[in-house]
This record gives sequence, C-alpha cells and structure tokens, in this order.
Amino acid sequence: MALAAVLAAGCAPSAKTRAAGKNGKPAQITLDDALVQFSLVSALAAGDYVGDTPLADLLASGDFGVGTFSHLDGEMIVLDGKIYQALADGTVRAADLNGTTPFAAVTFFSEDGQITIPAANSLEELEEQLDRQLPRHGAPYAIRIDAEFPTLTLRSVRPVYSAREPLVDVVKDQITWEHEQLRGTLVGLRYPGWIDTLNVAGYHWHFVSYDRTIGGHVLACEFERGQVRFDECSTLVIHVPQSKAFEETGAGDVKKQDIEKIERQRTPRARP
Amino acid sequence: MALAAVLAAGCAPSAKTRAAGKNGKPAQITLDDALVQFSLVSALAAGDYVGDTPLADLLASGDFGVGTFSHLDGEMIVLDGKIYQALADGTVRAADLNGTTPFAAVTFFSEDGQITIPAANSLEELEEQLDRQLPRHGAPYAIRIDAEFPTLTLRSVRPVYSAREPLVDVVKDQITWEHEQLRGTLVGLRYPGWIDTLNVAGYHWHFVSYDRTIGGHVLACEFERGQVRFDECSTLVIHVPQSKAFEETGAGDVKKQDIEKIERQRTPRARP
Repeated sequence: MALAAVLAAGCAPSAKTRAAGKNGKPAQITLDDALVQFSLVSALAAGDYVGDTPLADLLASGDFGVGTFSHLDGEMIVLDGKIYQALADGTVRAADLNGTTPFAAVTFFSEDGQITIPAANSLEELEEQLDRQLPRHGAPYAIRIDAEFPTLTLRSVRPVYSAREPLVDVVKDQITWEHEQLRGTLVGLRYPGWIDTLNVAGYHWHFVSYDRTIGGHVLACEFERGQVRFDECSTLVIHVPQSKAFEETGAGDVKKQDIEKIERQRTPRARP
Repeated sequence: MALAAVLAAGCAPSAKTRAAGKNGKPAQITLDDALVQFSLVSALAAGDYVGDTPLADLLASGDFGVGTFSHLDGEMIVLDGKIYQALADGTVRAADLNGTTPFAAVTFFSEDGQITIPAANSLEELEEQLDRQLPRHGAPYAIRIDAEFPTLTLRSVRPVYSAREPLVDVVKDQITWEHEQLRGTLVGLRYPGWIDTLNVAGYHWHFVSYDRTIGGHVLACEFERGQVRFDECSTLVIHVPQSKAFEETGAGDVKKQDIEKIERQRTPRARP
C-alpha cells in the first residue's frame, strides 16, 4: 500500500469559504507519488483548447510530463522542471510561464527502477519491451528514456484560434518532421486501459533533443544506447476544468476510438 | 479557477525513497476540495472485492461519501466523519475502523449551495430536479439530503468470501428492504458522464436513518420536507490499488453498461 494521503488541515489558505474541516479551516489532503492531470483528453478531443491553467500551477504539481498549450500552440514537454514548447515550425523554445494550458499531465519524477533495452527498431518494439518489463500493467507510469535515435518522426499541430474544431480533424493537418541521428529524451506516460477517455490509454511520448532545439509528439523512432527509467505512480489527480467552454463540450460523448486516432496517428517510417 | 495544488515538499515523510523533490525530500501536492476515491468501480465490477485500504485512511480523505467493505460485507455510508455499515440483514452498525475497503469515494463536505426541492414522488424525479438545479453538468458533486421519506427501497448485498464472482452476478441476489415514513439522510455523489468506468456516471445514493439503525444503497424513494445541500468538487483523486488481485482483474475490459446494471438495479416501487 502506498496511500500517503494525510490530513493536513490548515496548511494553506483556501480561496473558497469552506464549512468542513476542523476549527473551520479547509480540509486538505496531501498526496505523494501522484500523476496530476489538468482537464481530460476527452475535453480536448471535444474542442476545449483555450485552457486557463497557468503553467506555474503545472510546475507546482510536477517536473516531468506532457501536454499542450492554449490554442494547441505546440506540443509540451516538461522535463527536469522546465517546460519546453515544440512549435508547428519544428523549433523548440522555453515556454512563457505566463501562458496557460488546456491539457497536461505531470508528476514529480522519482525513479522506481531502470529497464535494460539495448535497442529497438521501432516505437512499437520499444513499447512491447516496456510492456514486458514494467512491473505492473494496472498502474500508471512516467517513463524517461535518454538515448540516441537513428531515426525519429515528430509531429506538431498548427495553433487553432478560430471556432471550435474537433481535435480529430485538427490532427489530420499535423505537421511531421523526420530526423536522423538525434540525441535526446523521450518523455513518456503510460496509462492503464481503465483510464478510458480521461487520458490516453497506453503510451504517450514527447521528445526533446539534448540541445533543446528539436522536439514534438513522437510518431515513430528507432532507438539505441538508451537509459530507460520509470516512476510508478500510485495516485491519479484530475483537475476538473472550471471554464464555461468545458461545460459546453461533449466530453462525456467522446469515444475511446477517437482518442486513439488523435494520439496514435503514427506513420510507419521507411528507412531513409 | 480553483486550482489549489501547491507544492508542500517535506510536510510528511514518504514510505518510499524518492529521488525527486527539493533537498532530496518527497515532492508532494496538497489539494483542497477533492473527491477522493480508492480503487475503481471497474475493478470492483471485475471482482476485486478484498480491498486493502484501511478505513482510517478513508476518513483522512473525507467525512462524507459512499462505498463498500471488504468482501462486499455491507453498503458503506460516510456521514459527518463517521462510517456506517448497512449489513445484508438490514441492520446498521458503526464500522470497525480496523476494517478495510476495496472501493469507496469520500470528500470533506463543504456546502457550496442549497437547492429547493419541496417533494419528489420518485428517485428519478428527485434526480431530474437536481439535474436542472445543480450549477454544472461537467463537475462532480457531493449531495446531502436530510428529509422525510414516505417510502424508501434499500438494498444490500450478501458478503462474498468465496472465489471471485463478477459483481453483476452478485447484485442479482441483492436483498431489498421496503420502508415507510423514515427520516434520515441521503448521502449522494454525482459523477459527470466523462468518468466512464472509473466510477458510476450519474447519481449514486446511500441512506442512513436519523437514528442510525436503518441504511443501505437506495433503489427507490419518495421524498418530502428535505434540505438539499451540495458540494461541487474541483478535483478528483484516484488511488490505484496496489494489490495483486487488482493486477489480475480485467478492470480495463469492464463496460459502462455493466456498471449501469450494477448500480442502478432499481425496482420501481408500487405504492403500498
């Protein structure tokens, strides 16, 4: 058991007047080892792209993870407590921490173990090896892979500022980039199947190069000479969006298959 | 925005050695206004009834909620910080806090508002009125209704100690109790549709009488002269089971329709 929820009433003031809690103070819980997500992938899939979560709040919940930015303006990589933004033009920049996100998931990466995978000829092969070697299939994981990538296919999407457009249509116009001989880090999350449409079941990989100039959502790769580290998370936290836009989305109607399409629009990569 | 996640590193010791966090201390997050669940209803539906969450841990996460007990030995009502156990023989007792639960959801009930519903001829009518009057449909709610109940149909299930049996079969043998002219409290949770199979979408009601002698899972009721209070929760917390039993269940394969069947096996009640 890793239930680290402890009552910590009165640690920090609450913005909301609360009747509960001892001495009239807010009743709070403190969690260790949590994978924290802001919004739902189903809300994103339904077109809630604006997002009002400050990036500073994100960093208060974790130092490692993936996500997107308001108006889908780039793929988000959170690594070692820094937020990188991989733009549709293929460049990477340090994100403006005054910005916001409509969807992201982060954890404080705390290594629980390492896995030996000498090489993989494809992302699928890498995932099969991880499936065999990660301790549990029912738990969520954060996975960090520092390695060399003989080939790597990344995608980013163009920002969406106009009226709401389902994400499944947005990703049809995804911009893909083919790279060779890159060194860098795969920042990955693996959710169990029971996550349904709250997040992406299975693996979700973003990449940023060692020099922090190239990055994006990973569609395909070959991999070698890597260090594979994992952090098993015992708790999931889901921050429910407070926006009117979220109320208007049909997040409850999004199907698991749509999420699959959005996140796994992978193109098999022919060797160059 | 009600993002109350703040970094509170070092507040409490972690049972697990962690590499992350400032000064080598665990990186923790503190949450206010959270609805905290232990395990998944899909795991319960798949037969993971043993449960290893101490009831004391449950009370550290909330003072209001619903759940079940190890081996499905009764329906759980958490009210005003006390845990009541409605047994299959129709009686209610204060739960032994040395016990454990395989599934429960609790929050620190903090009233966000009241709703005026003078009377309802059925549980469905009550829920329709709540649907119209609760502020949002995308948010989870805890709902407390103190009222008089001209009629009330409760169920409990027999404990399951033998080999694993799908919950959908267990509830076929549910024991139902018809009551008249009861005063007491409905302890309810409402989850949005996006919760999928992690919990029960829609309303989930347990009841305990004012004198704490009668209780159970509510299948039907008439209601009058009630006080309806609600607490909107901004965050969901899901504690992932750590047990081997959970690993062996097919929680990811459980369908939303099965959850419906289990929780809403309601019998329309003819007036006596």
